[in-house]
Amino acid sequence: MTEAVGDCSERTLIARLRGRLDAPPSFVRIGPGDDAAIVEPPRNFVEAVTTDVCVEGVHFDRAFVPPNAIGHRALAVNLSDLAAMGAAPRIATLSIVMPPALPLADFDAIVDGFTALAREHRAALVGGNLSRSPGPLVVDVAAIGAVHGRKVLTRAGARPGDYVYVSGSLGAGRAGLARCRASGHGDIGQDAVDVRTRYLWPRPRVRLGLLLGRTGAATACMDLSDGLADGLVQLAEASGRGIRVDGSLLPIDPEARQWFESRGEDVLQRALAGGDDYELLFTVSPRRLGRLRAAARLTHGLSLTRIGQVTATPGVLVESGGTANPVTAGYSHFGRD
Amino acid sequence: MTEAVGDCSERTLIARLRGRLDAPPSFVRIGPGDDAAIVEPPRNFVEAVTTDVCVEGVHFDRAFVPPNAIGHRALAVNLSDLAAMGAAPRIATLSIVMPPALPLADFDAIVDGFTALAREHRAALVGGNLSRSPGPLVVDVAAIGAVHGRKVLTRAGARPGDYVYVSGSLGAGRAGLARCRASGHGDIGQDAVDVRTRYLWPRPRVRLGLLLGRTGAATACMDLSDGLADGLVQLAEASGRGIRVDGSLLPIDPEARQWFESRGEDVLQRALAGGDDYELLFTVSPRRLGRLRAAARLTHGLSLTRIGQVTATPGVLVESGGTANPVTAGYSHFGRD
Repeated sequence: MTEAVGDCSERTLIARLRGRLDAPPSFVRIGPGDDAAIVEPPRNFVEAVTTDVCVEGVHFDRAFVPPNAIGHRALAVNLSDLAAMGAAPRIATLSIVMPPALPLADFDAIVDGFTALAREHRAALVGGNLSRSPGPLVVDVAAIGAVHGRKVLTRAGARPGDYVYVSGSLGAGRAGLARCRASGHGDIGQDAVDVRTRYLWPRPRVRLGLLLGRTGAATACMDLSDGLADGLVQLAEASGRGIRVDGSLLPIDPEARQWFESRGEDVLQRALAGGDDYELLFTVSPRRLGRLRAAARLTHGLSLTRIGQVTATPGVLVESGGTANPVTAGYSHFGRD
Repeated sequence: MTEAVGDCSERTLIARLRGRLDAPPSFVRIGPGDDAAIVEPPRNFVEAVTTDVCVEGVHFDRAFVPPNAIGHRALAVNLSDLAAMGAAPRIATLSIVMPPALPLADFDAIVDGFTALAREHRAALVGGNLSRSPGPLVVDVAAIGAVHGRKVLTRAGARPGDYVYVSGSLGAGRAGLARCRASGHGDIGQDAVDVRTRYLWPRPRVRLGLLLGRTGAATACMDLSDGLADGLVQLAEASGRGIRVDGSLLPIDPEARQWFESRGEDVLQRALAGGDDYELLFTVSPRRLGRLRAAARLTHGLSLTRIGQVTATPGVLVESGGTANPVTAGYSHFGRD
């Protein structure tokens, strides 16, 4: 019989979790185990603080998201937020609310997925909380990063004439989710080249965010967790400006394009609406394109695509086939999809 | 018909939440609304970081815990952890995972219960996350406080001969929970004098924790969220020592005692096992009783009771009726109560 978390005491599970963690960095004076962790704050930097919760049945489906991907994604969405502020990850906390029937091996895998990504980005897990649940699996993460006070990237700095860029490609998150739903994750690992990998193992653009902040290349930045249309509207609103996008320039993932086309779906609409891409959307002053090129040389081949320009007039317009259509933030209904 | 959170968009709920927050303190450079908040770290202090999750059906029952008490308690358990480290609260994040049928008025009340306690302890809500849930209501909070690097209170500093103290009274949390279960909360407010109030509106001992740290009175400290027996064992183990407690000295709440006695329950066992008291357990060197008295004068009348002494021999013993009985940490089963 498979051992489940419900067969263990909370102490056993905490010990099990701690046994899977790396030794903390020296700025963590006291790690997990006391009433709170004790952490030296960054010197001469400010802190970026974010939190994001992943709920089974809302943000992920255990039928096709393997447990290590659940742990990976729960941290990735938070690191993506830090990246969008130009902050380097430092510490994170992890709360897992688990149905008692959750297999112990799945618990281990959630923790391992989390810690593998944490290790890659040098984020130390300093605190956590385990609880059982009469309902779905919930993984809640708070993450804190460090950024120089004058290098913070916000959504609010875009100025008319700035170019609008997006990193990587669009649509892979949505197409990956659709493919997972249709086929299950099978044995898709992180190394596979497949839109499912892009959905299951998103790569937060931490390095790009740091470079955009440090070089001063970007005037505004945010991440695309809720899709490009939502991002464009949020960034334009926060900056009190508008954005005009050329739909033909969107870097739509080829496999995602093929997937949408084969289903007769509107590729442009899918790329605009689709979430889960965790790319960065940012604006660059034309006078600072040299800084952007300098940053781009250090992003390990991550593509940066110019898709439009900031306008003085508020509102977001997407040009396609000779017409310019207004884009509004998706009405995300809280009660259902 | 009652409006529910499921009738709203996430944006509407976030706007509603933000409208209920106080203006942030000046060290919060960017509050909620961007990808992450930007906070100036404390100068010359270290940070205490903690997180605690409250799950409906596990940690609270909506049948008798009113929504503002749910918000209050979710923050209180975290502030209690900060207090146990000697840290002053600074910032907090709040994640609420909600069934769509949750009335909007309840959502408001959860936020108001949280912010009222945050205001009292000068903790700024800098980030949050709202999600719907196909299951129970989950409220997850992370809190960060500041403490001087040489004034941190841990569980590990107790030395043989130190006196063992507990703040306030014991048993009220458990008796309050039992009374709530039996009678419902009715219209019990925070000002009522009743064990139900103690369960519903726990007062984290933030001021005491600060005083114990700043004066150097305590050698070790922790909070009693999981009960006195658990606390004694944890503190003794972390310090590599033992503790001998005189059961007759335990400051058992009179109303709680009456409640347990009227049900034929073992009062001492109930006081040892009972959680939800959020008092501080701490040890004091006999040479530093002067410092403790100095601290005690500033605690606004909160009683501090000496209940035992630290021993060189490991293990926790409770003397009662001429015999000394060993105490072990409660086997808290993860799968069920």
